[in-house]
Amino acid sequence: MSHLPIFVQGTHITQFGELWDRSLEDLAKEAALGAVADAVIQPSTIEAIFVGNMAAGQFEGQQHLGALVSSFFSHLPPSTRVEAACASGGLAVLQAEMALLSGMYQTVLVVGVEKMTDDTNGVTTILSSAADAAREYGSTFPGLYALLAKEHMHKYQTPRRALSMIAAKNHSHALANQQAQFRRTITPDQVEKSMLVADPLRILDCSPITDGAAAVVLSVKPSRKQLVALTGFGQGQETLDLARRSSLTSLQSTVDAAKKAYAMANKKPTDIQVAEVHDCFTIAELFAMEDLGFCKRGTAATAVLKEETTLSQYRQSSQKKLKSSLPIINHSGGLKACGHPVGATGVKQVAYMTRLLRENSDFSVGLTHNVGGSGATAVVHILEKGQS
Amino acid sequence: MSHLPIFVQGTHITQFGELWDRSLEDLAKEAALGAVADAVIQPSTIEAIFVGNMAAGQFEGQQHLGALVSSFFSHLPPSTRVEAACASGGLAVLQAEMALLSGMYQTVLVVGVEKMTDDTNGVTTILSSAADAAREYGSTFPGLYALLAKEHMHKYQTPRRALSMIAAKNHSHALANQQAQFRRTITPDQVEKSMLVADPLRILDCSPITDGAAAVVLSVKPSRKQLVALTGFGQGQETLDLARRSSLTSLQSTVDAAKKAYAMANKKPTDIQVAEVHDCFTIAELFAMEDLGFCKRGTAATAVLKEETTLSQYRQSSQKKLKSSLPIINHSGGLKACGHPVGATGVKQVAYMTRLLRENSDFSVGLTHNVGGSGATAVVHILEKGQS
Repeated sequence: MSHLPIFVQGTHITQFGELWDRSLEDLAKEAALGAVADAVIQPSTIEAIFVGNMAAGQFEGQQHLGALVSSFFSHLPPSTRVEAACASGGLAVLQAEMALLSGMYQTVLVVGVEKMTDDTNGVTTILSSAADAAREYGSTFPGLYALLAKEHMHKYQTPRRALSMIAAKNHSHALANQQAQFRRTITPDQVEKSMLVADPLRILDCSPITDGAAAVVLSVKPSRKQLVALTGFGQGQETLDLARRSSLTSLQSTVDAAKKAYAMANKKPTDIQVAEVHDCFTIAELFAMEDLGFCKRGTAATAVLKEETTLSQYRQSSQKKLKSSLPIINHSGGLKACGHPVGATGVKQVAYMTRLLRENSDFSVGLTHNVGGSGATAVVHILEKGQS
Repeated sequence: MSHLPIFVQGTHITQFGELWDRSLEDLAKEAALGAVADAVIQPSTIEAIFVGNMAAGQFEGQQHLGALVSSFFSHLPPSTRVEAACASGGLAVLQAEMALLSGMYQTVLVVGVEKMTDDTNGVTTILSSAADAAREYGSTFPGLYALLAKEHMHKYQTPRRALSMIAAKNHSHALANQQAQFRRTITPDQVEKSMLVADPLRILDCSPITDGAAAVVLSVKPSRKQLVALTGFGQGQETLDLARRSSLTSLQSTVDAAKKAYAMANKKPTDIQVAEVHDCFTIAELFAMEDLGFCKRGTAATAVLKEETTLSQYRQSSQKKLKSSLPIINHSGGLKACGHPVGATGVKQVAYMTRLLRENSDFSVGLTHNVGGSGATAVVHILEKGQS
C-alpha cells in the first residue's frame, strides 16, 4: 500500500430526480465524461473503470454495464461492474482504490448509475432483492427499517420527533444543492402527518425513487491545486437477514467499516467535520450517527433535536450560533432530499464531499457512509483537503 | 505488483446440471466451504471474498450475493459481487488478484455461482440483458453468435463440420469429468441433424442451461506441495453491440486480454499445453483458437477437423498418436458438455485447470478464457505448475 493517498481529480453529478427523458446510458455517459472533463485530463488517461450499479438488469433489462461504460471511450479500458445493493457505488470506489494500490493502474474512473423510474410498480420488489430472498421472503425495505426503528425507539426511548427533524434538516440542506431531487423545505409536523408506510415510518421518512449518476476520477498522481485525497476506507458486512444478528439497534457492518477507515486515515470520529451518511430512511441516519462514533449509543436523537448536525443557516432554534462538536450531516440533502439512485449514491457521496472540501473553507476532513440493504454491507471513506 | 505469483491453494466445483433440489445458496455454500477445506486452512484465514454472478437478481430475486456468501463465515469477511455477464466468474478472480496485489489481503476466496433452471421460460430474455438493450433490442444470444458464425464461414470458408466436431470433442472430453452436466458422447452427424436454433447454430452447438458453483482460494503465501500459480492475467473489452465493431470474425476483447496475460506470464501461445476456452456456442471455440493465437486466422477449422485439440484417447482418426503443437482444448468438456452456469464458469475454469495441473503430469502450463456476452468482456488467465 505504497500509493496512499489517492487523489480525487475530477467529479461529476447529474441531476437527480424523475428523469423520464434520460436513459440509463445517457446518465452514465454524462457522469463519466463530465468527471474526466473536470479532472482536466485526456480520456485516454483512464486506464480502468469501475461501475457501481444495483439492478439495471431488473430495472432496464441491461446487465454488463462495465462493457457499456467502457465503450464511451475509444480505447475501451478494462471495466468492472460491482454490486452490493445500495452500497454498490461506495464499493465500486473501494475496488478502484484497491486496483490503484495494486500498482496495476495510476488513474481510474468510477461511475455509479441507476435508472429507477421506468417501472415504478416493480421498484419495491426489485429493491427487495437486496434482502435475504429465502429468510425474509416478501419483506420490503420500509418494513425492515421500520422494525429497526421500533427496536431503537423501544431500547432508547428514541422520540419520533427526532426522525421528523432529520427529514426536515435534510430537505433544508438540499435547498442549496442544484442537483437535488427535492429542493423544498418540509416541517417535522408535515413528516408526522404524512402517509404511514410501515409503522413508525411515514412517506416523508423515506428516500425517494430516483434516476441519476455520479462519477469520480481517482489517481495516485497529484495534478491539481486544492486536491482532495481519499485517506482511509473500510468495508464491513452483516448477515442479510435481521433474525440472525446480535443487535437490531446498530449495524455492525458500519461499526467495522468505520473502524478500518479511521485507522487507515489515522482519524477519530471527533476529527470529522462533515459527513454524508446513508439515510435511506430517517432512522438510518440515527443509526449512522451512533455506529460511526459521532454520538454515544442512544444519544443521537438528542443531538438531532438540538440541531447539532444542521447547517447553521438552517437552524430553527435559539442555538443559531452553536458550534457543535458533531459533524454537519448530509450537507447535500442526503438520500432523503438529494435523492437515492441506489447504485449511484455511494459515488455521489464521494463526489459531493470532494467538491465541498474543495470549495468550502469551513471543512477540511469529511466522511462518507454507504449502506447496502438493511446493513449487510457498509462502506466508509474518509476524505481530506490537501495541497498539491 | 510485488506479490506475483498468486497461488491457487484450494478448489471446489459442485455438480453441474439441472439441480432442482439445490438452491443458489446451497450451491454457493458447498463451493465456498469446499474450497476452504481443500486449501487445508481455517475458515478465519479468509480475509476477503469476491463473488462472480451474472443474474441472481433476475433468476432468483436475490442480489447482494457478496453479503450472502460472507455470512457463511462467522467472521463475516468483506465481500464483493462482480458482474460482467458470462465473464463474471473470470472477472471476480481478476478482482481478487488485484486485491492481493494491493497488499490489503494475503488470502482471499472467489466463488462463482448461478442457479438458472428455476425459470427456464425466462432464461433467454435474462441472458439477453448481457447484450446492448437499446441497440440490439430483442436479440438473443444464439442469434448474435449465429451472425458471428455466418461471417466467419463466409470470410474463411469455414466448414459446418468443424463446429460439429467441436461439440463431439467436448462431449467426449466430459466423459471423464464427474461434475459435468452431459457425460455422453455425441457424433458430428447428430449435431448436424439436431434442431435448428439460429442458422447455422443447432441445439447441439449450444451450451446448456445449468445450475452450479465453483470456488478457489487464492493466496500470496505458498503452503502446499505441487502448488499451482496464477502467473498472468488480462482483461479486454469490446462494444456491446456488434454493429459498432471493426471485425465480426474475431473478438478484440480476447486478443487484448490474451496479449496482457501472455506478457505478464512471459509466455507465448505455443507454450500453452491445455486451455479451457469459452465455448458458449461451438463457433466461439473456433474464434477463441484464433484470438488466443493458437492458430492463424481462418485455420482453426482445419486443426479441429484434424482433431489436433482432442485428447488422444478420444481421437477417431488415424492420427491417434499425433503429437500436436496445439493445446488440448476444453479438457473438462467446456461450457458445451460440462455445462455453463454463467457466473460460475470463469471460476470453474480456474478451479478445473488447477486440478489438472496438480494431478496430470502431461501438463505444466494452462490457460483459461472467459467471455461476457457476445465478446464485450474477455478475461484470460495463465496458470503454471510449481513446487513449494
